[in-house]
Amino acid sequence: MKFKVKVVPLRSEKLSVVLNQNDAEDLGLLPGDRVKVVVGKESFVAEADFTEMVEEGEIGVCSFTAEACRLDESCLAEVYPVSRPKSVDFIRKKLDGGKYSALEIKSVIEDISKNVLNDLEISAFTLANEIVGMSDEEIQWMIEAMVENGEKISFERGIVVNIQSIGGLPSNEFHLIAVPLVASAGLLIPKTASRAITSASGTADTMEVLADVNLSIEEIREITEKVGGVIAWGGATNIAPADDRIIRVEHPLSIDPRPQLLASVMAKKGAIGAKNVVIDIPYGEGAKIESGEKARALANDFIELGKRLGLNVVCALTYGGQPIGRAVGPALEAKEALKAMEDRRGSASLLEKSLGIAGILFEMTGVASDGYSYAKKIFESGKTLEKFKEIVSAQGGDEKIRADDIAIGDKTFTITSKFEGAVVAVNNKAIVRIARSAGAPKDKGAGVYIHKKRGEVVKAGDPLLTIYAEKDWKLDNAIEVARAEAPILVSGMILEVYGKFR
Amino acid sequence: MKFKVKVVPLRSEKLSVVLNQNDAEDLGLLPGDRVKVVVGKESFVAEADFTEMVEEGEIGVCSFTAEACRLDESCLAEVYPVSRPKSVDFIRKKLDGGKYSALEIKSVIEDISKNVLNDLEISAFTLANEIVGMSDEEIQWMIEAMVENGEKISFERGIVVNIQSIGGLPSNEFHLIAVPLVASAGLLIPKTASRAITSASGTADTMEVLADVNLSIEEIREITEKVGGVIAWGGATNIAPADDRIIRVEHPLSIDPRPQLLASVMAKKGAIGAKNVVIDIPYGEGAKIESGEKARALANDFIELGKRLGLNVVCALTYGGQPIGRAVGPALEAKEALKAMEDRRGSASLLEKSLGIAGILFEMTGVASDGYSYAKKIFESGKTLEKFKEIVSAQGGDEKIRADDIAIGDKTFTITSKFEGAVVAVNNKAIVRIARSAGAPKDKGAGVYIHKKRGEVVKAGDPLLTIYAEKDWKLDNAIEVARAEAPILVSGMILEVYGKFR
Repeated sequence: MKFKVKVVPLRSEKLSVVLNQNDAEDLGLLPGDRVKVVVGKESFVAEADFTEMVEEGEIGVCSFTAEACRLDESCLAEVYPVSRPKSVDFIRKKLDGGKYSALEIKSVIEDISKNVLNDLEISAFTLANEIVGMSDEEIQWMIEAMVENGEKISFERGIVVNIQSIGGLPSNEFHLIAVPLVASAGLLIPKTASRAITSASGTADTMEVLADVNLSIEEIREITEKVGGVIAWGGATNIAPADDRIIRVEHPLSIDPRPQLLASVMAKKGAIGAKNVVIDIPYGEGAKIESGEKARALANDFIELGKRLGLNVVCALTYGGQPIGRAVGPALEAKEALKAMEDRRGSASLLEKSLGIAGILFEMTGVASDGYSYAKKIFESGKTLEKFKEIVSAQGGDEKIRADDIAIGDKTFTITSKFEGAVVAVNNKAIVRIARSAGAPKDKGAGVYIHKKRGEVVKAGDPLLTIYAEKDWKLDNAIEVARAEAPILVSGMILEVYGKFR
Repeated sequence: MKFKVKVVPLRSEKLSVVLNQNDAEDLGLLPGDRVKVVVGKESFVAEADFTEMVEEGEIGVCSFTAEACRLDESCLAEVYPVSRPKSVDFIRKKLDGGKYSALEIKSVIEDISKNVLNDLEISAFTLANEIVGMSDEEIQWMIEAMVENGEKISFERGIVVNIQSIGGLPSNEFHLIAVPLVASAGLLIPKTASRAITSASGTADTMEVLADVNLSIEEIREITEKVGGVIAWGGATNIAPADDRIIRVEHPLSIDPRPQLLASVMAKKGAIGAKNVVIDIPYGEGAKIESGEKARALANDFIELGKRLGLNVVCALTYGGQPIGRAVGPALEAKEALKAMEDRRGSASLLEKSLGIAGILFEMTGVASDGYSYAKKIFESGKTLEKFKEIVSAQGGDEKIRADDIAIGDKTFTITSKFEGAVVAVNNKAIVRIARSAGAPKDKGAGVYIHKKRGEVVKAGDPLLTIYAEKDWKLDNAIEVARAEAPILVSGMILEVYGKFR
């Protein structure tokens, strides 16, 4: 059967076509089935969906597919059903409790990387790995395949190191300090970071306030070789693309399976050529990992995997029971980090973490025998700020930028304490929900500033937190969320009142 | 934010809206998130997707949503993000290895029934149930919730019985004989059947050759009370709708998890008020169940579940290593069944199965002490044909129809044996693929007729199977599939030749 090509206004990130229901039945197709589309001497395989958007005899293609396959509305296409990719059988095998061979898991990851598998199939893959489990060997093969099926960097000279946080905490912008600190000691640190998915600001969102983060893999290599460090958005590269696609299906199911968490970190580190890696594992109430026991188990997994992959891994367990710094949201966090570098002091937990993690890298690479003191010396010398500005400038930002110049949202609302007492809890998740309601991460200036953290003493009327927004309606939303959530608890507070007074 | 409603040409079976990417980010939405849409005093919750089809400030709704919510392009809508349904948390709990409470599984099934959960969520539910497993109690609650959240029939008088095959075999049209046979003994048998998904013809497709099968639940009740039996398409009713939605996500993953197989059969039988049920479990090479051991385990599961649900269940294990009758495809199967009733003889395996299963029901309900003989007597008396015609007529078909009048595809191709020998295998899956390539089930007249079954003797040149199609290009496709598949093996055949002759 010959079909007339029609370009339809669907958003798609992969090759897909739509057919009229009647034609689809004629071809014996079911939703999610794949077809081979032949146009002249060219052909491609795409997923077929059925819609009212095209008439019988027409084949609809989204603009992505039209462009990728050089189709226009003058084309005629032949369409044949094709069987589902072999990799789906391998996923089935895992669902049935089996074990992947090296070739099988590589074939699955290759098909995910090339957008051959659809979201349902990727979600089945992820769920099967989570529930049935994967051996260390299978995870190793998966990571190798993720690296293999994407862009890679290699450096001709220098000691390449990296830092990765498993994330999940607000105000965790320590990379903005640690990366220049490490780079100013002569190590190479090409940091690729993520944007926020469910958080208030990813490291890439925060860095973007000051510089361009949409860098190609070639730009990442060049800048790192020139100034020693970079903080780029990993999503602008094609590093381990399978990982990004897997993360996309995890959100709707609110899952973060252990094999995927391990693979996600290690694949990205492997691809950028780092040999020495420090992984930050914050744990505590409201963090991704809640107990020390689980944090230590995860640390062991990372170290073991590192050995298999030829990466020297050290894990730093950090306190994650409240936000790290005091600022939450892209501009607020950028401001807090830059201010700390300008003043050579700042939020104790933010600085301790930055210096501590840089220090571990200094010891791992033999730069210093007392890494923490060495890091502290560099930081206090002002070299960190100098290096940070070099990085900002190399990434197309303004090297004269000062913390006070960073614009934040001008719609504000401050919540004060009704009591005298001590702060007993700062609720990570509530803080993130408030900052997101206020517009973060899309509105760079939106977020939350925490005036009082756990253990700090407040008097009645003292500010607890300030909400910043760029739009009035978002400020209103955030205030409503803050009122419902009790983000900061002061000892002696009555949390709720039950029953009638008379 | 107020959005202008725009009706967009998307096919959808559930409430869904599309927003411009920029607006979605402003609202803090991620793909798959849900929104509350408020129009005047009305509101509804729908899944939000992002697309180029609408501009900023517009909200796109498919025609289904527009109709269901009485929206048109003059409407203004307010849109708020809402959190995901509680039932998703319950699915997460199962993913983590937990057990559903009665209230939890009921909430999941209710949300599936009402189309609140999306395909990714339903697939996670199905996979979790398969891999983590469900206790008998959880399956019982799931079935009760499936029945509760759908239409039900109850009969004021009479003994209500039913038959269900777990399916998966070609030429399995025995319901067309067994239903009138049972009804002619005075029992009530309201049979709801499915259409083919991956098979060549479902019982509903086959019956549709002779009568209308798109009956409402009220019509099913009335016809059953009037003539004793009915063969309707279950999908035209709203019986256990959760089951249909679950089946829809199983196909793309090629899964058929045990809890869902059990629930699917039992929920449908429960909803139509049957108290005595015979379940046909064919097993053998190329059937859904391959070993006798697995078939017996499944039979025990059905019987145990029946006790919990107050249903009297007997399972009939039958031979499924080859097609039941000789005809495959809607019209061919209808013709074969009708011909058997006209002639009072026919394909031995088809008749044995029909009489055997009807006989079990006669013994279960006390109609006869030797059910098989009683069934045979009725069948040979011609009463089965008479009752079948009453049913056909009550379902709007032509009661004068004769097997020879049933039109089948006029494009044919016969494959003959190259050898003398005995048939050693008829490959179920290959036969189905050939019939589907020829156009079944969409083209009613398409299919396959098997001249020689296992154990039968052939001479060189004897026909093995004939392919029927309504369109030349489909016949060509089917011939190509038949050539690649070796659907019928004759002893002594060389299957493949390896190596060079010189």
